[in-house]
Amino acid sequence: MSTIAMVKAAEKRLKGNVRRTPMLTSPFLDEIAGRKVLVKAECLQHTGSFKFRGAWSALSALPKEDRAKGVIAFSSGNHAQGVALAASMHKTKAVIVMPADAPKVKIDNTKALGAKVVLYDRAGGEDRDEVAAKVNEGGELSLIKPFDDPEVIAGQGTCGIEIVFQAKDLRVKDAEVLVPTGGGGLASGIAIALKEYADLLRVRTVEPQDFDDFHHSLKAGRPVMNQRTSGSICDAIITPTPGFLTFPIIRRLAGAGMVVTEDECLHAMALAYHRLKIILEPGGAAGLAAALFHGNEIDGQAVIAVATGGNVDKEIFQLALDKFGDF
Amino acid sequence: MSTIAMVKAAEKRLKGNVRRTPMLTSPFLDEIAGRKVLVKAECLQHTGSFKFRGAWSALSALPKEDRAKGVIAFSSGNHAQGVALAASMHKTKAVIVMPADAPKVKIDNTKALGAKVVLYDRAGGEDRDEVAAKVNEGGELSLIKPFDDPEVIAGQGTCGIEIVFQAKDLRVKDAEVLVPTGGGGLASGIAIALKEYADLLRVRTVEPQDFDDFHHSLKAGRPVMNQRTSGSICDAIITPTPGFLTFPIIRRLAGAGMVVTEDECLHAMALAYHRLKIILEPGGAAGLAAALFHGNEIDGQAVIAVATGGNVDKEIFQLALDKFGDF
Repeated sequence: MSTIAMVKAAEKRLKGNVRRTPMLTSPFLDEIAGRKVLVKAECLQHTGSFKFRGAWSALSALPKEDRAKGVIAFSSGNHAQGVALAASMHKTKAVIVMPADAPKVKIDNTKALGAKVVLYDRAGGEDRDEVAAKVNEGGELSLIKPFDDPEVIAGQGTCGIEIVFQAKDLRVKDAEVLVPTGGGGLASGIAIALKEYADLLRVRTVEPQDFDDFHHSLKAGRPVMNQRTSGSICDAIITPTPGFLTFPIIRRLAGAGMVVTEDECLHAMALAYHRLKIILEPGGAAGLAAALFHGNEIDGQAVIAVATGGNVDKEIFQLALDKFGDF
Repeated sequence: MSTIAMVKAAEKRLKGNVRRTPMLTSPFLDEIAGRKVLVKAECLQHTGSFKFRGAWSALSALPKEDRAKGVIAFSSGNHAQGVALAASMHKTKAVIVMPADAPKVKIDNTKALGAKVVLYDRAGGEDRDEVAAKVNEGGELSLIKPFDDPEVIAGQGTCGIEIVFQAKDLRVKDAEVLVPTGGGGLASGIAIALKEYADLLRVRTVEPQDFDDFHHSLKAGRPVMNQRTSGSICDAIITPTPGFLTFPIIRRLAGAGMVVTEDECLHAMALAYHRLKIILEPGGAAGLAAALFHGNEIDGQAVIAVATGGNVDKEIFQLALDKFGDF
C-alpha cells in the first residue's frame, strides 16, 4: 500500500539525483485553452521522462545485497531507460525485456545507458514472462515493475509534490491535473501527494482512444481491459489494464477519465514545440492535448498538464510538425 | 557603465517575472564533448529566449511617466518578443521595427504579443533609423536597445547569477561559459556576474563563421566589422559589430572568441532535441556546438553552454533533423 509517508521518504532518497523539472506557461496556450495552462515538463527529467523517479525510488529502496545482484524490468521504453540509468548510477546491472516494436530511440538509449536489452515479439504473441524467466534463470535479479510497486508509485509521487509548490508559486490553487496514464503509477503517486498538500488540485487520467482502460474502468468501478494492445503512436501509455495497486488509489482520489485522439496528441506536440520549446512524445502530450482540446470536460480557471516524456523518433516528431506546424 | 550593483538591482526587479531556467545535462553529451557539459536552457525563458530578461530590466528601470508613453525597439526577433511581452505586462505599448527577412515565427509572435510591428528591407539597404524616426515622429517612445544599454546588460547578467549557483549545485567550479554572441549584451552581463561570484568561470563568445566580429575584434583589440550582414540561419546573432558598451567589458573579462559553422549549429540542434528534449534555434545552439565540436579550444573538466533561444521556423528545425537526426 502506497502512502504519503512513502512518497516523502522517496523524496528524500531522490533529492540531488532527480531533476526538479520546470513548470512552463505561455499566453498563447492559455488563449487556446480558455484558461491558464501550466505544463509540468517531465520530458526534461533525466532519461527524458518521469520514469526515472520511480526507478530511482525502487532501486534505492532495495536491500543492499539484492541491489548488488542486479535488476530486471519489462518496458516499452521509458521505464527501461529510467531503470537503466538508475542501475548504472547505483553501479549495478540491469536487464531490460522490451517489445521489438518499441521506438528505436528508446531501445538504443536503453542499451547506451549500460543495460542488457532482450527483445520479444509483442504483436506476434510471444510471452514476455517466459522470455524473462529464461533471462533470469538463477532468479537473482530483482524485478522493478513499471507501476504496480509501492516504491515506484511513491517515486512518481515526488512529481506531485513539486506540482503543488510550483502551482502555488504561480498562484494556482484550484485546478485539475491532467496525467497521461498507462498503468497508473504516475497518476496514483501524484494523487497521493495532492491529497496531502493541495485538496483543491485533482488528478484526471488521460488516455488515447481505444486504449482508455482507466476511462472505462473508472466508469465501471472495476478494472476493464482494452480490446487493442498495440498499434498506437502513444506507445508509452497503452498498458492493457489498470494496475492492481494503482486503480484503487485513482478510483478513490481522481475524477473521471479523459480520452484524446492521436491527432490531438500530435497537435499538442506541435504547440509544445512552438510555444514551450520542449519535445514531447505522443503519449507524453496527451495531458496537454486534453487541456487544450477538451476544456469543456474540466473545471477550474487553470489547468495543469503533466508532460510526461519526450522520447520520440524523429519521423513521428516531423509528422507532428507537418500536420500541425503551420502556425 | 554596467556594474554588478546594477545586475543585482535588476535581479530584484526581475524576481517573480522572469523564469529561472533549468541547467540540463546528459551523459551522452558528456561523451561527445569529452568533458561534463552543462546546458543553461534559456530557450525555456518567457518568449523563448534570454532577451526577456534585458527587456524587463530596461522597461522596469524607465521613469514611470516615460514608460507610460510606450517604447520602441529594433530587432530581428528575439529582442522584439522580449520587449513586446515586457511592455504588455507593464500595460504599455510597444512598436517594433523588424527586418522583413526575419523568421516568420518571430514576426508573428511579436504581433501576437500585442506589439505594433513595422518591417524594413534589411538586404535592400533601407535605413532602419529613418523608418524608426517616421514611426516615432512625436519622439514620445523610449528606445529599448537590444544590447548597448546598461540596464539591458544588467538584465542579461541575471542569467549569469543563476549559472553560478546552478553550476555550484552540480559541483562545477572551474569551467568556461560559452555564450552565443550578437551584440554582446548577454556575454557582457554574464561576465560581470561571474567576475563577482565565480572567479573560475570565464565567458567565451561564440559566433557563426563570417559573422565573427567579436572573434576578430578581441584579437585586434578594437571593434572590427563583419563583411557580411545577412544570409545566415543564425539570424539571432549576426550583429555587424561589437557593442560600444559591451566590447570593453568582454575584452576585459572574457577569453578568446570562438567560431562555429552553420552545420555544427544544426548538429547541436539535433542533439539537443535527442538528448535534452529542448528546441534550439541555430544561433541559440552555437554555444552547445562549440562545447561539443571545439573541445580542443577550451579548458576545464566541465563546460557550460548557454542555449540562448528556441524561436526557429519548422523548416530549419526539420532540416537539422534531416541532416543530423540519425542517431
